[in-house]
This record gives sequence, structure tokens and C-alpha cells, in this order.
Amino acid sequence: MHKRNLEVCLTPALLHLYDFKASIVVVIDIFRATSSICYGIENGAEAIIPVATVEACESYRHSEFLLAAERNGEVVAGFDFGNSPFSYIREKVDGKTIVLTTTNGTHAINLSRGASKIVIGSFLNITALCNWLKTQPNDVLLLCSGWKDKVNLEDSLFAGGVVHLLKDEDYHLDDSGIATEDLYNLAKADLNAYLKKTSHSERLKKLGIEEDIAFCLNLDVTKSIPVLDGERLVKMELE
Amino acid sequence: MHKRNLEVCLTPALLHLYDFKASIVVVIDIFRATSSICYGIENGAEAIIPVATVEACESYRHSEFLLAAERNGEVVAGFDFGNSPFSYIREKVDGKTIVLTTTNGTHAINLSRGASKIVIGSFLNITALCNWLKTQPNDVLLLCSGWKDKVNLEDSLFAGGVVHLLKDEDYHLDDSGIATEDLYNLAKADLNAYLKKTSHSERLKKLGIEEDIAFCLNLDVTKSIPVLDGERLVKMELE
Repeated sequence: MHKRNLEVCLTPALLHLYDFKASIVVVIDIFRATSSICYGIENGAEAIIPVATVEACESYRHSEFLLAAERNGEVVAGFDFGNSPFSYIREKVDGKTIVLTTTNGTHAINLSRGASKIVIGSFLNITALCNWLKTQPNDVLLLCSGWKDKVNLEDSLFAGGVVHLLKDEDYHLDDSGIATEDLYNLAKADLNAYLKKTSHSERLKKLGIEEDIAFCLNLDVTKSIPVLDGERLVKMELE
Repeated sequence: MHKRNLEVCLTPALLHLYDFKASIVVVIDIFRATSSICYGIENGAEAIIPVATVEACESYRHSEFLLAAERNGEVVAGFDFGNSPFSYIREKVDGKTIVLTTTNGTHAINLSRGASKIVIGSFLNITALCNWLKTQPNDVLLLCSGWKDKVNLEDSLFAGGVVHLLKDEDYHLDDSGIATEDLYNLAKADLNAYLKKTSHSERLKKLGIEEDIAFCLNLDVTKSIPVLDGERLVKMELE
């Protein structure tokens, strides 16, 4: 296999700098959209439809779909649920299609359209994801959703975790990949403790979602890789 | 003093996310523009005029000014010099005004206009810069020039070094500040060795500027803080 590029785009605001037409884009929004998408797909959700706006989500109101809308960390009034992973348990999502809009994650997914393939990453499926990436000939772009276009530490750490797991494969890394892997190595012994020093963590604590946070930092709870198929995120069929 | 914000903008492409009207912006382009500006001002340059384009630099051709133009790491043909720090020694610049355009650094300076104050940082003046920042009531935004709007490691490391030196002052850090300080702590024992693993470093090696690189990583060779006064970077008068 030729030497592939493995790059890290630290926020969607930098995505225009990357040529990702032939790449696999891994969308990352650890707290909590992509963690919940991985968990929901693992738990039997038929599909998750990422939409950009609350209005677009609302337009599915009279369908059989579940509607999930989060803004600024909270469930939008009138919606079934937001992006807490505990809303994506088997009892709630098995066999269902969910329409989802979030502050950062679904925005990043939509910006990635045009990539060779768009997949969803989180600590929950990190090893399954990396094992699959290794088998693919494509360059890889890890797209951190960030927080309102600013860089955040949890998405950066996950990108670094992927770099760490792929490193033996001899990808060509960019500076962001080198930096995030070093941060991941610093933090990996206790991701939650490391992230406690961020301001983001204080904000999330105010939202009362510490259990969500702890859950989203579990490695390898799931094996599914959500992949975008048209408008729908579905479970990738692995050979 | 109230609790000040200390934020790190990892590339000029993210500057629009920050409200810096009341802030001190520290412009950072370690390889090599801001290192050379610090060195030139320390060595008696009367002023350095940062301009955006080679054409703007050319327009000063028939003045008494020295003309410095760099693009893609090389001196532009027909110009006195580019951004090698060794062009900014006392014998060459004492008492002179230099008009300078570079790939990344002068772009970042120009984008920062509108800040309360714009100053120039590099490892060469890091302690002098931080000692001065401590005395100022303003929020601080560390602006990494990056490489063509992408994040680079050397500018990020310097930002982390500033965070490290200011940390006892109880600034409020953002996630980029936390991340870059951790990277600086990893790298500080041997900055040059740490940076050797970057792809940027390979590119710079091809340019034959390893001596420049090594020089730009020296701490506290200078004490001057270049500050933008109208169109000119001049030596800040410290009390």
C-alpha cells in the first residue's frame, strides 16, 4: 500500500484548507454527538439522519422517526431527546430511525460531504474504527467538531488516540497529528482527569451531564462504524 | 487585577472567532518572521514595516529603506533579504527601517489590526515579553501565524511557552492554551529535537536553513518587545 496521509483538522473552520475528495473523513464530536451516534447504531438504530437545523429536524415531526435536537448542550424544548448517549440505548432506538441536529457534530458531518467516505468516530468504537481504517487505501482526515468552531480538547484527544493506534501503519502525519498524539499519550491513563482541567468541562458540569461525559470516555464499548449513506448514517457492513 | 483571559488562536484562519478589540495580540511566527523582527529591533533597526504583498514591498524600492521579502521560505528575487535572522544583525540593520513581507507572519500582523495593542513574540524575547504582559490589565490573545493557515507545531509550542510563564498569574485559559502548554512542557528540554519530527522541519531542512532554525529556538537572546505603532513595528519603551 502506498504511504497514506493522516491529517487532523482541529475545527470545521479549517476544513476548507484540506482536499478531502479522495479521503475518508472521520467526524469527531466526543461530547456527545458522535459518541451517541456510535452507541445508537450499535444498539440497533436503523439509521440516524443528521440535519443542520432545528427546523429541518422539526420538519420530520409527523413521520415515524424519533426526533433529537440539541443546542448549547441541552435538549431543545419539544423534542424526544438530545445527544445524551443514555437516550440511545437499545430499548429506545432498536429498529428506529432518528433525525438528529446538534450544535457542532451534525454541522461537521454536513461540511464533510464530498469526501470519499464519511464515518463516525468516538472512544466507544475507536479500535473497530482504526482496524477498519488500516485496511483502506485512502488518505484519512480526522475532523474535530470543536465547540462553535473553536478547538476543544476532547475531540483533539480522540484524534490523537486514532493517530496513536494507526501509527505502526506508516502514515504521513501533519503537525496537528503529531501534537494530538502527544496530548493523547499524556492523557490516556485517565482521560477524564485530564479533561477536568478544561473550561469546557466546567460548562458541561453545569449542565449536569457528568455521567454522559464519563460514558463517552469509555474505550471500545461498541464495534459498529456508522457511515454516511446518502442522507443517513447507517451501520457499515464489514466483510 | 481582575482575572484576565489568555487565549491561543492556533492559526490566522480562526482569528474571526475571537473578540480582541480590548486585547493585546501577540503575533507569533517562530520560523522565522517574528524571530527576525525581534532580533532586528534588538539590533537597532529604527522600524520594521510589515506589508502584505511583495508588490507593496516593491513600492518602497526607491526609498532609503531596506526591502525584505520572503515567500515559501525563500528570499524573493531582487530583494535585499528575506526573513533569516542572520540578515537582521546590527551591522546590517542598525538605524535602518526595513520593509518586510513574509508568507505567514506579516499576514497575521495585518489581520490583528484593531487590537488594543499588537506586539511581536518569539523565543528570543519570551521572558521580556511575559514580564511585560504580566503588568498589563488586558486580556491576551496569542496568535500563531501557522503555515498557510494550517496549524504548525513551532508556533503552537511558543504559545505554550508563554502560557507556561504566565501561569502563576491566574489567567483564564482556553483549551488551546491548556494543550499548547502541555506540548511545551513535553518539548522544552530540547525544542529542536522535538520539532525534528515534524514535516515542516523536513521542508525547512530542504531550504538549508537549519542554522536559522536552531537560532530561532534560543530563549532570551533579546530583551526588546516590538510593538506596532501605526504602520511601523518599533521598540516598545518600557518604564
